[in-house]
Amino acid sequence: MPELRKDPIVDRWVIISEERAHRPGDFPSPTQAQQTHFCPFCHGNEDKTPHELLVIPPGRPPNQPGWSLRVVPNKFPALRIEGELNRVGEGMFDRMSGIGAHEVIIEHPDHRLALEQCSEQNIADALWAFQQRVLDLQKDRRFRYIMIFKNHGEAAGATLEHTHSQLIALPIIPELVQEELAGSRRHYEYKERCIFCDMIAQERGDGRRIALENQNFIAVCPYAPRFPFETWILPKYHLARFEQESQENFRQAASLLKALLLKMRGALKAPPYNLVLHTSPINGNHEAYYHWHIEVMPKLTKLAGFEEGSGFYINPVPPETAAELLRRTPHQP
Amino acid sequence: MPELRKDPIVDRWVIISEERAHRPGDFPSPTQAQQTHFCPFCHGNEDKTPHELLVIPPGRPPNQPGWSLRVVPNKFPALRIEGELNRVGEGMFDRMSGIGAHEVIIEHPDHRLALEQCSEQNIADALWAFQQRVLDLQKDRRFRYIMIFKNHGEAAGATLEHTHSQLIALPIIPELVQEELAGSRRHYEYKERCIFCDMIAQERGDGRRIALENQNFIAVCPYAPRFPFETWILPKYHLARFEQESQENFRQAASLLKALLLKMRGALKAPPYNLVLHTSPINGNHEAYYHWHIEVMPKLTKLAGFEEGSGFYINPVPPETAAELLRRTPHQP
Repeated sequence: MPELRKDPIVDRWVIISEERAHRPGDFPSPTQAQQTHFCPFCHGNEDKTPHELLVIPPGRPPNQPGWSLRVVPNKFPALRIEGELNRVGEGMFDRMSGIGAHEVIIEHPDHRLALEQCSEQNIADALWAFQQRVLDLQKDRRFRYIMIFKNHGEAAGATLEHTHSQLIALPIIPELVQEELAGSRRHYEYKERCIFCDMIAQERGDGRRIALENQNFIAVCPYAPRFPFETWILPKYHLARFEQESQENFRQAASLLKALLLKMRGALKAPPYNLVLHTSPINGNHEAYYHWHIEVMPKLTKLAGFEEGSGFYINPVPPETAAELLRRTPHQP
Repeated sequence: MPELRKDPIVDRWVIISEERAHRPGDFPSPTQAQQTHFCPFCHGNEDKTPHELLVIPPGRPPNQPGWSLRVVPNKFPALRIEGELNRVGEGMFDRMSGIGAHEVIIEHPDHRLALEQCSEQNIADALWAFQQRVLDLQKDRRFRYIMIFKNHGEAAGATLEHTHSQLIALPIIPELVQEELAGSRRHYEYKERCIFCDMIAQERGDGRRIALENQNFIAVCPYAPRFPFETWILPKYHLARFEQESQENFRQAASLLKALLLKMRGALKAPPYNLVLHTSPINGNHEAYYHWHIEVMPKLTKLAGFEEGSGFYINPVPPETAAELLRRTPHQP
């Protein structure tokens, strides 16, 4: 049974999940590439995954060919959906049972396509599927945050090549989201404005760090990026919760995301990348100051290790240079 | 000229350093291995590095063969030692000039030896050299923190194979150290005890997470580790500042560090690893609650990417399992 444990010094929760070690190629060799030719996410292999939670087009007979997107439980979940959420003290330490949901969103039936090679409609469908799963899971009172992310390419942590995203519903709020909430709340108390909206206004006035934009969304290389070519996609209007977005805005976000990823593909030779959706926790009244967004981080440099051990990052590419290269790179394949 | 920039939302400083991009193999390909046969850190190549800052045995003619340890400036520094520390606002953003020191500690003249294969005296010498450089650099009023770390192996971020550590003197305090200071101060205000001392006492009573110990030092797999086999070496007595250690304790710390790294080498097939020294910032009165220590993180799993994007870690190896394996593994080569 997985567990959540808290570091008593910095109050950071981690998942201890032995089950995850059973995924092929994940432990103990750091360099071993995965050599599987069979893909459980491919069209026709629907019986090789756990049962579907959601399918597009909706209303189809479940776990049958003919889909364009599927959501299934993760076969190697980091957390378990069954059981009670027990909080236990061990002297000065705190832990709780590893309760949570862990799901996989397969965005396309074709093994050969990266997300950015799928249609805008496919990507908008994926955003809609994320929303539907969030709306369903947030009814579960045990959960506090629903994290959605994508690892593309082995160097970015993907264990299967076929395009997919992951969703983890958690009984805690991840540390970086907590820091963003604290920082944006502090700014709001002082200025009575959203710090993300302020940032967008300043970036639009300046222009040097904008990678691209459309009517309702903007892709910005942030002022102090941890990683080369780190880029954030934000709605230009204020909205704390991803799950309150409209279908029309999902289409616009999908269009911008596809164009950004195609630009990165062109400019950076199809890099591995991570994509993390940042949104408001399920509970709490963060509407006034939080602002949902997507962070895209291509994996271009090996982290020098001390960066994880110190929280201190050295980035060799100024965001102005990154944004300029992305602006100049065409996003037509 | 490198710059330090602050993320306005989470108050995280990063170094933007274009110079670092010129290191071979570092950018843009994520997979390119470095194929250099010439090593500037080897015995006989003293004229291929910047001039020595420190040498063992001391008092030798500088930059000549016959040394057992050298400290030299980094040829590709992330920060520059010359210049004034200017703090500048750009609208809502903050930056300062990238002032700092970046040095390399070459712990042994022989290219073939990993740190754990050097003698205990070599490792004690390295700790002593760290101390001497800290004592020298902390006289510079521009600096707030001196970070010392080691990247061993390419997957851990090392760009040169020859054993070496790095020192970066910074005009800011790294985020993780700030979090440790805040957490340990909070505990002290509540309990009037050091949280690290409390943790050592509980771990010694329990025993399951102790990898090894000697008279004055203990190696513990922490209760909530981010990474498999993450292990911390702490003095059993309370001391906030590494640079106040005695020579005798450096010998004991060196002995424990060598044994721990040899156990990891045996148990985990000579893994790449990172080692980060955590110590009190130069200024501020943290003596009562902070506790210096070394964090060792073997690189066994690829981070799944979202972990950097969320600050949330999934660890497949419970620390009790890791400590038990380390206890059972001999540390004689």
